[in-house]
Amino acid sequence: MRILSIFLIFLFSLGGSAQNSNDSLSIRVKNLSELEEALGNSNPGDTIIMANGKWTDVGIQIIANGEKNLPIVIMAEEKGKVFIEGESFLKIGGDFIVVEGLIFQNGYTPNNTVIDFKVDNDHIANNSRVTNCVIEGFTQPSRETQDRWIEFWGRNNQLDHSYIAGKSNSGPTLRVYLKGNENINTHHQIVHNYFGPRPRKGGPHAETIQIGSSETSMTPAYVNIADNLFYRCNGEVEIISSKSNFNTFKNNVFFESEGSLVLRHGNYASIDGNIFIGNDNSEFIGGIRVINTGHWITNNYFYKLKGTEFRSPLAVMNGIPKSPLNRYNQVTDVVAAYNSFVDTKSPWHFSVGSNTDQAGVLPASEIRSARPERVLMANNLVYNEKVQESPIVAYDTVDGVTFKNNILNYENKGSVQDSGIVRKDFKIKKISEYLYVPEHDFNVTYHGFDFEKIDKDLLGRDRTGNNSPGAFKLPVAEQVNLFKQENYGPKWFQPEIIGKKGKTLRVSTSTEFLRKLEEAEAGDILELAEGDYKFESSISISKGIIIRSQNKSDKAILDFSETNLSSAFKLKPKASLKIQDVILQGNSRMNAFQTLDDNMSVAYNLWIKGSEVSDFSELLQVSKGSFADTISIADSKFKNLKGGLSLAEEIDDKGEYNAEFVIIKNSSFENISTEVLNYYRGGYDESTIGGTLIFKGNTVKNSGVAQETEVLLRTRGIVNLELANNTFLNNPVKYIAILWGAKGQEPVNNTIKNSGEIKVEENLKQKLMY
Amino acid sequence: MRILSIFLIFLFSLGGSAQNSNDSLSIRVKNLSELEEALGNSNPGDTIIMANGKWTDVGIQIIANGEKNLPIVIMAEEKGKVFIEGESFLKIGGDFIVVEGLIFQNGYTPNNTVIDFKVDNDHIANNSRVTNCVIEGFTQPSRETQDRWIEFWGRNNQLDHSYIAGKSNSGPTLRVYLKGNENINTHHQIVHNYFGPRPRKGGPHAETIQIGSSETSMTPAYVNIADNLFYRCNGEVEIISSKSNFNTFKNNVFFESEGSLVLRHGNYASIDGNIFIGNDNSEFIGGIRVINTGHWITNNYFYKLKGTEFRSPLAVMNGIPKSPLNRYNQVTDVVAAYNSFVDTKSPWHFSVGSNTDQAGVLPASEIRSARPERVLMANNLVYNEKVQESPIVAYDTVDGVTFKNNILNYENKGSVQDSGIVRKDFKIKKISEYLYVPEHDFNVTYHGFDFEKIDKDLLGRDRTGNNSPGAFKLPVAEQVNLFKQENYGPKWFQPEIIGKKGKTLRVSTSTEFLRKLEEAEAGDILELAEGDYKFESSISISKGIIIRSQNKSDKAILDFSETNLSSAFKLKPKASLKIQDVILQGNSRMNAFQTLDDNMSVAYNLWIKGSEVSDFSELLQVSKGSFADTISIADSKFKNLKGGLSLAEEIDDKGEYNAEFVIIKNSSFENISTEVLNYYRGGYDESTIGGTLIFKGNTVKNSGVAQETEVLLRTRGIVNLELANNTFLNNPVKYIAILWGAKGQEPVNNTIKNSGEIKVEENLKQKLMY
Repeated sequence: MRILSIFLIFLFSLGGSAQNSNDSLSIRVKNLSELEEALGNSNPGDTIIMANGKWTDVGIQIIANGEKNLPIVIMAEEKGKVFIEGESFLKIGGDFIVVEGLIFQNGYTPNNTVIDFKVDNDHIANNSRVTNCVIEGFTQPSRETQDRWIEFWGRNNQLDHSYIAGKSNSGPTLRVYLKGNENINTHHQIVHNYFGPRPRKGGPHAETIQIGSSETSMTPAYVNIADNLFYRCNGEVEIISSKSNFNTFKNNVFFESEGSLVLRHGNYASIDGNIFIGNDNSEFIGGIRVINTGHWITNNYFYKLKGTEFRSPLAVMNGIPKSPLNRYNQVTDVVAAYNSFVDTKSPWHFSVGSNTDQAGVLPASEIRSARPERVLMANNLVYNEKVQESPIVAYDTVDGVTFKNNILNYENKGSVQDSGIVRKDFKIKKISEYLYVPEHDFNVTYHGFDFEKIDKDLLGRDRTGNNSPGAFKLPVAEQVNLFKQENYGPKWFQPEIIGKKGKTLRVSTSTEFLRKLEEAEAGDILELAEGDYKFESSISISKGIIIRSQNKSDKAILDFSETNLSSAFKLKPKASLKIQDVILQGNSRMNAFQTLDDNMSVAYNLWIKGSEVSDFSELLQVSKGSFADTISIADSKFKNLKGGLSLAEEIDDKGEYNAEFVIIKNSSFENISTEVLNYYRGGYDESTIGGTLIFKGNTVKNSGVAQETEVLLRTRGIVNLELANNTFLNNPVKYIAILWGAKGQEPVNNTIKNSGEIKVEENLKQKLMY
Repeated sequence: MRILSIFLIFLFSLGGSAQNSNDSLSIRVKNLSELEEALGNSNPGDTIIMANGKWTDVGIQIIANGEKNLPIVIMAEEKGKVFIEGESFLKIGGDFIVVEGLIFQNGYTPNNTVIDFKVDNDHIANNSRVTNCVIEGFTQPSRETQDRWIEFWGRNNQLDHSYIAGKSNSGPTLRVYLKGNENINTHHQIVHNYFGPRPRKGGPHAETIQIGSSETSMTPAYVNIADNLFYRCNGEVEIISSKSNFNTFKNNVFFESEGSLVLRHGNYASIDGNIFIGNDNSEFIGGIRVINTGHWITNNYFYKLKGTEFRSPLAVMNGIPKSPLNRYNQVTDVVAAYNSFVDTKSPWHFSVGSNTDQAGVLPASEIRSARPERVLMANNLVYNEKVQESPIVAYDTVDGVTFKNNILNYENKGSVQDSGIVRKDFKIKKISEYLYVPEHDFNVTYHGFDFEKIDKDLLGRDRTGNNSPGAFKLPVAEQVNLFKQENYGPKWFQPEIIGKKGKTLRVSTSTEFLRKLEEAEAGDILELAEGDYKFESSISISKGIIIRSQNKSDKAILDFSETNLSSAFKLKPKASLKIQDVILQGNSRMNAFQTLDDNMSVAYNLWIKGSEVSDFSELLQVSKGSFADTISIADSKFKNLKGGLSLAEEIDDKGEYNAEFVIIKNSSFENISTEVLNYYRGGYDESTIGGTLIFKGNTVKNSGVAQETEVLLRTRGIVNLELANNTFLNNPVKYIAILWGAKGQEPVNNTIKNSGEIKVEENLKQKLMY
């Protein structure tokens, strides 16, 4: 049955591809079978309208062929009113298909992709487009289940003006596949999208975009990623992992995203006119990391970035001589010119990853000793408000880099001195939020081989003639309207604002507590009157909630001591629990906090402040696959526990770990019979440089008495660690902790009495992951 | 001083680049300083005429800039009458330079190149051309000195209509360099040249053309090699070694060239319309060897090739999983379509180089276990006059190859059966020397992805519409004038014809012998009357010469017994000595045959037939760096020698060896006190698959008595070996020989009495070369 709908279609004015011709038909469909029938009958130029409402558990497969200027369009009846939910997906296999205006939410894909530019090997999309769509939180129930939300196959496909956010599970958000001659020389366009928050995953496989893989890294991909916003894409150390040749990255904004644009495999990338904004927010926010040959990095702007090494604003790596296909080729023939670095702590890091000192624990094929060669740094501009020691951090001899006309506003006090790094006093002025340019021009630029091709600046203005170093041709008008969040993604869609203020709900009995917890919205505060709250069931948390005593000096008591529960609190996906000024009383059979055993689809957080916790088995017991973004403990007391924080379930040695940040300050631990902390990351892999422990100002006493306990604070494989100003008293263990010297870990100012030693092991032998 | 010459210049009618404009000047120069001055004063459009005659010991450096359509031309006064000799070279650094009509001979370069498209890093040639030049025998005095005759740097340079032959020393004849951004995306043209004989080198580094290297194999090279003749280019196993991306090989003829066109590193080569003619001449004559990704092999014609494995007509290799940069990537996404194979013994070899059985002696990073994937063989045509067992030889499972519409004129009896390999009875007809096509068309072709781009056949005729499998669109007219030697290289230059018949010079005294040897031309015969010829000095040989007795039954005696010479014969470069029906009498202090100690610039040959040699130290003692193409011994007797053939001076284990062919048949060895043969090739490297010993029908007795002698016939590392029908009597050694089982070596029908054993060692542990 074919229903003809006659009404006007306003097609978002997004260029010619979605325009309807006079002879073409529009048909409105209300369910999957109608859609399938309409597709089966479709002709070039036809439009299929998906009715407003929820489409649940739909596997949409589009096998059809439009023509140039006569695409087949599948679109939402009204923008933002067609919801794809449940176990659903969309696959496109054919030529000149356009899909518009769908929102994927409240569900997940039952197979490997949410949107796939391929139905099967005989039906691959070409010249097709997904536009004005939203995928939000469409994440797998289990974080360990791997999928990709968008898979590119074929050639000349496009994703534009879409909003993509909230992928928590394993697998890059968007991946371009290059296997097979049908899928190379792609010229795919990924433009004007809003890649919203992707939470930290804890381990690899959480890129926002991956283009190819090491096995296809020799292919010419020609993927264009331009004019996108990457907003807090924190999944892992690589926001974009370029693993193929001839890709371009132009005019994207990377906003407070913990990771880098990484040229991981493949060669001849063009990275031009991108903006990296760190706002000094985190040391995890990086810039561009360079591996391989022939890249041109021009007109980029780096602002308030304080990352180092892998996460430097510009990290140029050492390679492995004659590297295996999946490891690190030497950097050669790279040009970095006309970039601006404003208030970046140390803008340029060379020979990052040099590990010649680890020859004892790594095979020869892992030693990155091949220094960058034939690298040209020219016409770059570095401004730091505060005086910095050196613009260059070098992990090996810098003998393969030529410097020409790089301008600094402060004295270079580093070991790498070069006449091509010039100090000039200059001031900057603001031209837009985050963007600053020199007040006056320098009237000198270096002209290198092929530099005439750098003919535009970051704003697209002509560079020929009188040129300027840095990302902007000077002068620049005072008001440049360069970066606005709302310019990215669908115009009709506004992402939820994170971190809104909650309301306070007062409770004085445990019944009331449970009822109000149920009713509370994310961000609300449960404020407890003084008293003893006896619970007979676990308290489940699956949203942001603060539990605190009304009166600090008369702490409410949450009492679980007379139950047979497995835990006092059950932390579910999206739990973000703050406990403040509360007394938690248990018994030795139960844990204080515990995650679900599986389907911990989204990360959780746990804050404990000014509280007292006693008489439990474990303080926190987590499951494999669960992930805490932050566990923060401050000003609290823990007593009579079997164990402390147990974050060591990721034992596959694939780089995964159970928590990103563990921060324990000014707290006391007494009579913890086994480990106070067991925090583990296994597998040798520089792409997981995470796991952070801050353990400062704490007192641990009479703990670790259980016979099998050898180490009080287990932190094996955790990369970032501070251990300072603690007191350890009468803990009968061999080691308080074994630190990882090569990662710069060292104990500072700890007082140790009768408590074993703190050992520093320079190199940690780890299992190779690949 | 600037001399203006006014005379007409005829510029070989080779296209526009060498045309002179009206305002331009012509200047005739007679020596290097005049040339340099003229270059210093030159302007775009100028022509500099090099005077006829010999230019000796000249280092010509051209630093100048022409313009498009106004090149600066440096040319011979008359074609073929300007000779560059002695220690000379030519370097070009600048834009739009044309060099024409020079002959390089009787000398060698004192640096690394004869013709260099670069003067130094600041003066690289672009848009420049070397045309109608000859380089012949311009080889280093020592074969071990490495150079390249032509080095390409920069972009858009061209070598055309030139004749290049006779390089004996180490180093590819022509090499394209891709290091540095100035030297990529080259679009170099190497067209219409005649690459004449390059003798076997014995070991690697003797390619005729090498494009890039493993370190630059990721670069886009875009080198075009078209319409060239490769005539007996026997240097090594790779005639052309393509080590970069996007190169094209079109309409070249490979004539009896011992080696292959090898896609060694890099990807996306196009090999279209080439002709491989073996004439059943040698098992060393190969076709195309495939490694890496994305190559298209179309419209090629293979004729009478009997090579196998690395030297198959089409060899598709196994790769090393995650291969190091300089080893073997997996073959993926390769298309071989519309090729014709006529009388090729076994046309297609898959998984060549598979060596999983050698895991015991090689490191994991050397094991080629990654089978070809996504390889498409379509519309190929195989015709064999004689019935063959199988078109496919497979060294591993063939599971990654798709066969479509490949047509065979005989039954496929091999293990790889596929519906895409179809038997059809058909006959062929001759359309030209070496070229045959089916008498009738098959009216069916397979259309694969992107096949519409294969729109021409080998003759450049339109393939669209009704198409034909094989290299030719049918029908083809009977007389196609496709391949004529004289169509390649400079029209005015005819290479010397090899193997012309010599005259017979009769001698009857040793004085006369020495005089006539001196006077003899290459190929002449010294015929000796019966008698005793006493010599007081060594006989030096540096040309082709035959020494024989007039009467077989009354052999002349060459008697050195009363001298203190180091050897009876001194073999110099180019020596090609045949000794026939002669008695050679020495003493125990001297060797019978010996090479020079150094500067053995060109290979030598030695034949001994029907002769008797007795009372010498070594039969043949060679020097490091010397190389015998063929050593052939037949129907001869050797007695009372300290040692036999000593061919074991290449001990660097870099794949080099001292003789290509050692053939010993129907001869007897008696009282040879140490080894009868010591023949060595060291270093694990599949690119040296040489060294050939045939030892058949011989008798060895009472030999190997010296205490240190453990093996009578040492052949370590020699790849090809036959040991059959010999008799070994009373040789007190541990081993007669130790054969290499993995190379298929096995003793056949030998009689052994009291002479040790013949051992077969399956895998030989060798030193890795790289």
